[in-house]
Amino acid sequence: MTHAVRHDAMRAGNLAVVLGALDRRGPLTRAALAEATGLSKTTVSKLVGDLIEAGMAVERGTVGDGERGRPGMAVGLSGHRVAALGLEINVDYLAGCVVDLSRTVRLLRTQATGNRSGAPAEVIGRLRTLAETLLAEAAGLGLSVAGCIVALPGPVDQATGNIHRAPNLGWRDVEVPGLLELPLPVLADNEANLAALGELWFGSGAALGDFLHVSGEIGIGAGLVVEGALFRGAHGYAGELGHVVVSPDGPQCRCGATGCLERYAGQDALLTPEENMTGLVARLHAGDATALAACEKAGTALGVALSSAVNLFDPDTIVLGGIFAPLFPWVSGPAEATLHRRLGQMRARVPAVVVSQVGADGASLGAAGQVIQRIIADPGAFLLAPQR
Amino acid sequence: MTHAVRHDAMRAGNLAVVLGALDRRGPLTRAALAEATGLSKTTVSKLVGDLIEAGMAVERGTVGDGERGRPGMAVGLSGHRVAALGLEINVDYLAGCVVDLSRTVRLLRTQATGNRSGAPAEVIGRLRTLAETLLAEAAGLGLSVAGCIVALPGPVDQATGNIHRAPNLGWRDVEVPGLLELPLPVLADNEANLAALGELWFGSGAALGDFLHVSGEIGIGAGLVVEGALFRGAHGYAGELGHVVVSPDGPQCRCGATGCLERYAGQDALLTPEENMTGLVARLHAGDATALAACEKAGTALGVALSSAVNLFDPDTIVLGGIFAPLFPWVSGPAEATLHRRLGQMRARVPAVVVSQVGADGASLGAAGQVIQRIIADPGAFLLAPQR
Repeated sequence: MTHAVRHDAMRAGNLAVVLGALDRRGPLTRAALAEATGLSKTTVSKLVGDLIEAGMAVERGTVGDGERGRPGMAVGLSGHRVAALGLEINVDYLAGCVVDLSRTVRLLRTQATGNRSGAPAEVIGRLRTLAETLLAEAAGLGLSVAGCIVALPGPVDQATGNIHRAPNLGWRDVEVPGLLELPLPVLADNEANLAALGELWFGSGAALGDFLHVSGEIGIGAGLVVEGALFRGAHGYAGELGHVVVSPDGPQCRCGATGCLERYAGQDALLTPEENMTGLVARLHAGDATALAACEKAGTALGVALSSAVNLFDPDTIVLGGIFAPLFPWVSGPAEATLHRRLGQMRARVPAVVVSQVGADGASLGAAGQVIQRIIADPGAFLLAPQR
Repeated sequence: MTHAVRHDAMRAGNLAVVLGALDRRGPLTRAALAEATGLSKTTVSKLVGDLIEAGMAVERGTVGDGERGRPGMAVGLSGHRVAALGLEINVDYLAGCVVDLSRTVRLLRTQATGNRSGAPAEVIGRLRTLAETLLAEAAGLGLSVAGCIVALPGPVDQATGNIHRAPNLGWRDVEVPGLLELPLPVLADNEANLAALGELWFGSGAALGDFLHVSGEIGIGAGLVVEGALFRGAHGYAGELGHVVVSPDGPQCRCGATGCLERYAGQDALLTPEENMTGLVARLHAGDATALAACEKAGTALGVALSSAVNLFDPDTIVLGGIFAPLFPWVSGPAEATLHRRLGQMRARVPAVVVSQVGADGASLGAAGQVIQRIIADPGAFLLAPQR
């Protein structure tokens, strides 16, 4: 390793330490930053200068300097320049958002569109148009979008962005990032994982403790957040709640198995043909007996699958997102009753079931938030690269 | 904090750093230890001296000193003085073992005894007798037993050692450590958690990747090991595979729910009245149709519950321990077939199903290993305490 390379690696590491401290602790003086990071004041001043120049940090007025009481100029994360693009392909909609470095949501779009059995090139073409619109609007706001993550409804290989199988889209082995052809780094991840992170960063977050976040529309997924981090499993395929067994002799599922949760509580089990979620919610409000019975059945099945998940994961809280957010008033009761019936005697405490604060936007918000997380973990890769 | 207290805290921390390096990396020279830990050679020499004096480390002859090639005296963990006691109460047996600091199993005893519906005081009395025998034998070997963990068949509160409910023992809210009245620190933990750690430290270990270890006899539990550490859940109650749903309308379980795995694959579903595991295995070898059909049914139910667990946890490997170790030739086939049927289309790779290398001894070995783990993580607490 040459001296220059070693110096760049050290500088990149120190930039991450300083930016991480500003992210976790909020605005700090340079003196407080030096104390928090163990770096010298001279080094901190130089790094802060670099971050300010890159538009990643900003001076935010005078504050007291902790114990000593001497006032100083506080430095905080800046949301004015660096941003991230989050996208989502789901069966009935496309979604996109732009989130800045301070995790403020700057742009948010949802587009209803039937993607079921749509050819990958066609669906990805529509997503590209949405992304290009968002990138143009972000540029108009003075934002430089550093990267993008696409949320997909199925298991995704983290390394390649390949979605092995998305039965509800009818896709097999589609490498979405490459096909998207956007002029910035693009990765892909499972929508349920990203929706859980969306809830962590843009929803109820830390108040939930360790939580299992349920999402999805036709498919059902879940993401487990343990001590503020996503539990991914050995291959990134953890949390596939939609294929947990409700009844092994139940109806055939698109995944190849039978009696999966998805067949009892996915959107297809709830909506009449041609109906959308708004129509179903209207029927529920009007007291339609068929709709009420379908939600009762879905909520009970959800409770059965969640009781298995609680037996295995033992979370503090269960968060219902995706379609279960608008349906919360009708599905949460039977789900909670089933959880208490199945778990109440064995456990001192059955997890609370609460509604997601981010709902259908969770996955695209989580996707953008994950890009921000990566930038904060390695600002050097962004800051030391040639600027576009 | 006084100077003396601060000094003791620093010394305790440094002792843990040195002992941890010897545990992870095997015997090292003092020079290599200084390089590995970042401590000065003088400090390392002093700490090594303390560890040798306490019988926790030992000089092991001359070795080359890494890059430099200078030979030096290597220091390694010593198994000659410090040891741990592991105990297990299960429904049909009591078990106990003594493991030394170098994780060598020094004593191992299993005692067949019917504990079902046994009064806690009576069962714990028998366990005390077993423990006292092991402690006396350990003393005869020159071992000083630093602590004990008891494995229990049900969810255990880590802080108090209280077992909230052990339906197969008929116990509620029994604080086993206090009732055991042994002259050393005693904690308790769930047998399935400890059996998974037993497999990690005394069985196939790291070769398994992230693994789900299934254990139990009448009850069925599981422990998930992720990156070499146990996944405990928010309250330490994760891995309750025995109460994962196989069929929600199935038979009533002792836990209060219906159709739990335990009712299909627990020992009570397999043995005829008065039969033990040896008898069942003899019938299986003899080709008894009833026994073969029961194992086929149990293996399939196990596959159903494990498919839910794989959907949620995504492990590399599934290890069958407890009663499923002797039954492996008869249950693993149907379990694997069910896993492939339910998971094969969605996942690029279905986890391998392998047999435990520790079997019924796993939980007591894991319990002793966990005590050793605690000593290595905080040797100061042991070393700085007044010696018995």
